[in-house]
Amino acid sequence: MVSVEETAAWFDGNLEDLKKVWFGLLRLKTVGADPAFADECAECAELLAGILKKLGFSVSIRGEGNGSVFGFRPADPGADGRTVLLYGHYDVQPADPVEEWRTDPWNPVEIDGRVYARGAQDNKGQLSFVLAALRFCVETGVPLPNLKVVIDGQEESGSEALSSELRTSPQDFSADAIMVSDTEMYAGRPTICAGLRGVCGVSLRLNGASHDLHSGTHGGIAPNPAAVAAAAVAALHDADGAPSLSGFTDGMLPPDPGEVEMCIAGGFDENEYLLSTGTLPSGGQSGVHPAVRGALLPTIEVNGFHSGYGGAGLKTIIPSFAEVKITMRLCPGQNAESCVDALKLHFEKFLKPGMTMSVTAEECGGGGFRVPLDSPAVDAARRILAGLGLGDSVIHWDGASIPVVGRLYEATGAAVIMAGFGSDEDRIHSPNESFAVSSGRLLFEYVCRMLSWFGECRSERPV
Amino acid sequence: MVSVEETAAWFDGNLEDLKKVWFGLLRLKTVGADPAFADECAECAELLAGILKKLGFSVSIRGEGNGSVFGFRPADPGADGRTVLLYGHYDVQPADPVEEWRTDPWNPVEIDGRVYARGAQDNKGQLSFVLAALRFCVETGVPLPNLKVVIDGQEESGSEALSSELRTSPQDFSADAIMVSDTEMYAGRPTICAGLRGVCGVSLRLNGASHDLHSGTHGGIAPNPAAVAAAAVAALHDADGAPSLSGFTDGMLPPDPGEVEMCIAGGFDENEYLLSTGTLPSGGQSGVHPAVRGALLPTIEVNGFHSGYGGAGLKTIIPSFAEVKITMRLCPGQNAESCVDALKLHFEKFLKPGMTMSVTAEECGGGGFRVPLDSPAVDAARRILAGLGLGDSVIHWDGASIPVVGRLYEATGAAVIMAGFGSDEDRIHSPNESFAVSSGRLLFEYVCRMLSWFGECRSERPV
Repeated sequence: MVSVEETAAWFDGNLEDLKKVWFGLLRLKTVGADPAFADECAECAELLAGILKKLGFSVSIRGEGNGSVFGFRPADPGADGRTVLLYGHYDVQPADPVEEWRTDPWNPVEIDGRVYARGAQDNKGQLSFVLAALRFCVETGVPLPNLKVVIDGQEESGSEALSSELRTSPQDFSADAIMVSDTEMYAGRPTICAGLRGVCGVSLRLNGASHDLHSGTHGGIAPNPAAVAAAAVAALHDADGAPSLSGFTDGMLPPDPGEVEMCIAGGFDENEYLLSTGTLPSGGQSGVHPAVRGALLPTIEVNGFHSGYGGAGLKTIIPSFAEVKITMRLCPGQNAESCVDALKLHFEKFLKPGMTMSVTAEECGGGGFRVPLDSPAVDAARRILAGLGLGDSVIHWDGASIPVVGRLYEATGAAVIMAGFGSDEDRIHSPNESFAVSSGRLLFEYVCRMLSWFGECRSERPV
Repeated sequence: MVSVEETAAWFDGNLEDLKKVWFGLLRLKTVGADPAFADECAECAELLAGILKKLGFSVSIRGEGNGSVFGFRPADPGADGRTVLLYGHYDVQPADPVEEWRTDPWNPVEIDGRVYARGAQDNKGQLSFVLAALRFCVETGVPLPNLKVVIDGQEESGSEALSSELRTSPQDFSADAIMVSDTEMYAGRPTICAGLRGVCGVSLRLNGASHDLHSGTHGGIAPNPAAVAAAAVAALHDADGAPSLSGFTDGMLPPDPGEVEMCIAGGFDENEYLLSTGTLPSGGQSGVHPAVRGALLPTIEVNGFHSGYGGAGLKTIIPSFAEVKITMRLCPGQNAESCVDALKLHFEKFLKPGMTMSVTAEECGGGGFRVPLDSPAVDAARRILAGLGLGDSVIHWDGASIPVVGRLYEATGAAVIMAGFGSDEDRIHSPNESFAVSSGRLLFEYVCRMLSWFGECRSERPV
């Protein structure tokens, strides 16, 4: 294992260089969802490809649209022969609303140890320090295992190209371990994200009459799509608030008692929740700890419900249609396609004669996953994180989704180690995004040690 | 009773004059809901007041905004001493969308026996022929009872001024019978509208978090106002589709078997319903005839439901609020204020901790009523309608509401005779509204005979 003295000295000596790379990435407007920025996305992919080539990777840029940067570097002589895949992304959210930025979102500036720009953290910032750790290892001769680097250009917009690549060339993604640094620290401590929920959803339009009807003349005669949609939504949960959609939990692997215990031990501060959201944690299944409800159990949430008159006052109509948007967060074992089908079937059953239903949008982001916590790689990560001087690491299950990571996990069966060094203060996706250089240093230290550990790892020892 | 020869000759001889009055009313843009037309509303009220004065009425214009025209004419010597109140209105719906009119909505033109203009039928048209009948009676010496004429200037926007007047000066509305000609013929036959439902409603806003939350991070933790509102909406009806809101039917006077039988006998054509609405009569309580469901039973209808994301595709949020607009149609005996209170209480019970509710609009249009059908006045009306040459009259209960008529009925206990000569072809409230001169003639004949009958009515005989 590399020593703290080595990494610290190298980091200090190369910080100006590292910032040049980081700032260079940030100056490119890589808003993946907007075709107007396609050229800058392509330029960014080329820039990253060049960095990897210099470190001994064979590189290709793949996929339609903003391509993914693929790098492969064979194991150093004497290093462990297993394969570690590093995942990150170079696309960013739009800078809108631009007028709320205090500095130019596309011209990074450092103020009091923080660098401000769109993508400063998510994910160009964290990615820059992962690349810095790779450079350290290569330059100082740390024996490295087989390395695959995948830098997504569409993470913020669904990772279509990468998912397609994963379906057609799964062998290119095969790995024993996957490292992702695109998450945050929990409660200010180094955090291993031990699982993400999957996500899928559908937008349904329930049609009644061909036009809005007078609710006096037709009330009690015509079917009311708003009321029908409400009845269907209400029947998605039982009286305890647990999902009761038929087929929804088929195949679901419930969390084991140890995971539940650890999740609860992570704590949940109701007052803090009230302060940050303005409401209480009163959603989901009653009698279950909020931290468990928000991460280890699946949910069905209405994201939008629109029907009929929405202006001032009242208007006596029976709406001609209702549109309901619902997304589900899935636990390991649940099948996204089946859940979407079950939801459509559920709504169909509520239709009254003379009503029709159409699907106006549908997304199957994929399933959820939980990382086994008893692997040597996770043990190593916990030891390394604990050695960073911020206290013991925290194990945290996140209720959100990074669908492509779930798909990588499903496709490869690799150990996934997600540890990121973001914080709420970074304001990712919002104006004035920033990332602290000190957080970047922690990430650099962590990745250097992890790569060093993987390189030393003997083949007979499981990952 | 006046003879057909008399009325027909007078009508033919005075038709050009009658049209002058009718067209004069139509040329005034009396859009009551829009303050921009206040001057023309006032001019119209003065015009109507002048017409009544010429017929021997003492007249006043009362109330804030577009005033109601009030006229009183004492009984002629030798005529019955009871009081008949004639209700109509001079305000109209806006002409929008103006571009869909084939003629100028404010410049009446007659084409093939129909007069086209906003208000041509509703209610300036029907009102013109009621006034013509009054003129006939006065000019030809038909002995008239005490007459009150009330011409509303706010019927299309809630009749606020008139309702206020009714509360403060109920004695001015006292009457033995109320005649209203603001309805339509049913199945092409002269129709007595035997009852209207009441109407009341409320717009509720259910608040959760202070802002939309990420449905991954917060799904299963935060309360979802859209789901809570849907659950509350779903619980407004039982499994059979009958309203199950606690307290809703308190005091309700169910229709008697004779009324139900007559209502069903009126018939309901499912194919015609499908053609005109594009859906089937699958709303309301199962196992009950649609005609009964739509007129003799109360309903609770969602008029609007809006929460969260409504754009293209999906967006993974938990909405911060849901707004639901609900109106109820009431049967006799139900109390509008109590029903609104019951609805608010119902929704409050569904709120989860950390949620709040606010009322964004509220209307209590008043209760429903059914006219007793065994009164001499209704008998007389049926005989007179049957004598018009269009076959026997139809008794029809309407699911819609003219709230102020309900309030007049409640306040006075008078016999209400609602018979109008509109038809679907008239397209009231829509572009290209029209009214057939032949329908006006029928209305004229009917009112002449009814007024004549009331004048002859001996005091010892009940109305």
